[in-house]
Amino acid sequence: MEKPKTTKKIAVLGTGGWGTALSLVLHSKGHDVTLWGSSPGYVELLKKQRENTKYLKGIEIPTDLKITSDIERSQKDTDLIVVAIPTPYARKTLQPFTNYYTPGTPIVSVIKGIENETLMRGSEILSEVFNGPPIALLLGPSHAEEVARRLPTTVVVTSEDIKLATKIQEIFITEHFRVYTNSDVTGVEIGTSVKNVIAIAAGICDGLGFGDNSKAALITRGLAETTRLGVAMGGQRETFSGLAGLGDLITTCVSPYGRNRKVGEFIAKGKKLSQVLEEMDQIAEGILTTKSVCKLAKKYNVEMPITNEIFNVLYEDKDPMKAVKELMLREPKPEIDVT
Amino acid sequence: MEKPKTTKKIAVLGTGGWGTALSLVLHSKGHDVTLWGSSPGYVELLKKQRENTKYLKGIEIPTDLKITSDIERSQKDTDLIVVAIPTPYARKTLQPFTNYYTPGTPIVSVIKGIENETLMRGSEILSEVFNGPPIALLLGPSHAEEVARRLPTTVVVTSEDIKLATKIQEIFITEHFRVYTNSDVTGVEIGTSVKNVIAIAAGICDGLGFGDNSKAALITRGLAETTRLGVAMGGQRETFSGLAGLGDLITTCVSPYGRNRKVGEFIAKGKKLSQVLEEMDQIAEGILTTKSVCKLAKKYNVEMPITNEIFNVLYEDKDPMKAVKELMLREPKPEIDVT
Repeated sequence: MEKPKTTKKIAVLGTGGWGTALSLVLHSKGHDVTLWGSSPGYVELLKKQRENTKYLKGIEIPTDLKITSDIERSQKDTDLIVVAIPTPYARKTLQPFTNYYTPGTPIVSVIKGIENETLMRGSEILSEVFNGPPIALLLGPSHAEEVARRLPTTVVVTSEDIKLATKIQEIFITEHFRVYTNSDVTGVEIGTSVKNVIAIAAGICDGLGFGDNSKAALITRGLAETTRLGVAMGGQRETFSGLAGLGDLITTCVSPYGRNRKVGEFIAKGKKLSQVLEEMDQIAEGILTTKSVCKLAKKYNVEMPITNEIFNVLYEDKDPMKAVKELMLREPKPEIDVT
Repeated sequence: MEKPKTTKKIAVLGTGGWGTALSLVLHSKGHDVTLWGSSPGYVELLKKQRENTKYLKGIEIPTDLKITSDIERSQKDTDLIVVAIPTPYARKTLQPFTNYYTPGTPIVSVIKGIENETLMRGSEILSEVFNGPPIALLLGPSHAEEVARRLPTTVVVTSEDIKLATKIQEIFITEHFRVYTNSDVTGVEIGTSVKNVIAIAAGICDGLGFGDNSKAALITRGLAETTRLGVAMGGQRETFSGLAGLGDLITTCVSPYGRNRKVGEFIAKGKKLSQVLEEMDQIAEGILTTKSVCKLAKKYNVEMPITNEIFNVLYEDKDPMKAVKELMLREPKPEIDVT
């Protein structure tokens, strides 16, 4: 019942850990997968080594999973495009693809983040670049390493077109990779973007040597401010209690793999943002997303104290201990009104 | 502003880790604290060692914090009673206190659990035993060890009488121990009781070697079924997104200290429940709470698949791997309807 009626020709754009892991999931279902990467050098390495040594160590990439840096080749006869390119590079990287894009081909976005200048989310960037294609999102608590190791994972496929969501669900679902459908595009994208900001705060708690009591409080209040923003932007409250809200937030805040959590931890231990950026070989989306979320909070007139403090720590050199103390020491008041 | 106008004479009942940690919080604010324990032998040890070596290792108990096993002495001129006795022993242990109880004295419950036979929550047990005293709850993400070490912690004080809640808030609040108020007694008690069941499931995930993706999905769906039960019983939905719902659930499911999580881990690694019970020197409330929650789910006609599978694993010898697989492999469907 779970097998798609026919296998598809699928192009996955982005040779990061997540692009690679999703290629493996799709390949394991018998789809004809082409993984596209922007760097010809790294693509050659991947083809030769059959392992993504930089972003997904220790996982073999089967030889019949195609890898290319040729845009035209990646797009030939493609039934589906999966975009796994970090927000800051998405628009520029995708532009050349439009020359080979067949209108009507569905695009699945796994982008988590909000463009700094335009304040656009992944689906909005794709819509603009590809001129209104059919779009679905695939998001949720899903560290690439665990998906690649076939540990049980659940995600949501979100689209305003529920038929498309169901089709994508059928294409991706496996015994280990469970896919639910959802129609709240705004809610899912805000939930999965803002969680990277809250994860930096969680990392700061870890770096300061605080315990699970503090972190649980932070995650709880972090989800509350994320929900406030999402609902103000038209998202549904329930989405934030689901896999793309609470679920993704928990994974990102507790997992040792989490890059955004690590950024917070380093900063709490005294490193400057510039140092952290220099030392990381993969982007931590939350750093730039923090700027966008602060702007959105102002635009929609929503109180987001944790995000604001993370902005102050990252960009105004505020002492992390002082920031966390100020969050903890706000006036005692009724819980439901907590802001 | 945060200092109570006058210090209080407070009796804390229960020499477990939590009773001891709360005594220390209250003592640090200058209150006249008497810690009561049911075992004269252990009380003598505590008085001599000034450390709760069994349940709160490495934390000094100041010499002017009184410790006694004498019920009458503990109740003399008491302004406030704090009950930190596990659910299964609460009714029987508290009965003799009624002889010395002055009607009108507020009682703060930190009980997490639901009586098996009566399906009563902490506040209901206290109400019956003490014949309708003023009751407040103090609950939230608060591992005793971290509170005792003065790591930042936030909790909620819940009472139908919001004036009482505010009074209790003033008595407990410190710079490290932040107290919010809430009026949803049912919601808070269901949230903090059911979380111990979900934590057993989280421990099973850990014991099976699953990752953070699985655990985040489990916590998300666990909160969903807890919320369904709580709302059916008259609780408010928002409570479950707050400190006593989501917050407490996260701490219990991720913290290495968590006894209930540990039970799940042991069982996933092949131990039988009887073995686990033998080896633990402190009660893991979730084991008995599972029985009560299953009964409540039936009574209120609420679907609770995780709780049911934990019941099967604990009491019907079901293979934990099979139980978790069945939870993961349920039919793919829209997320919001996920049951």
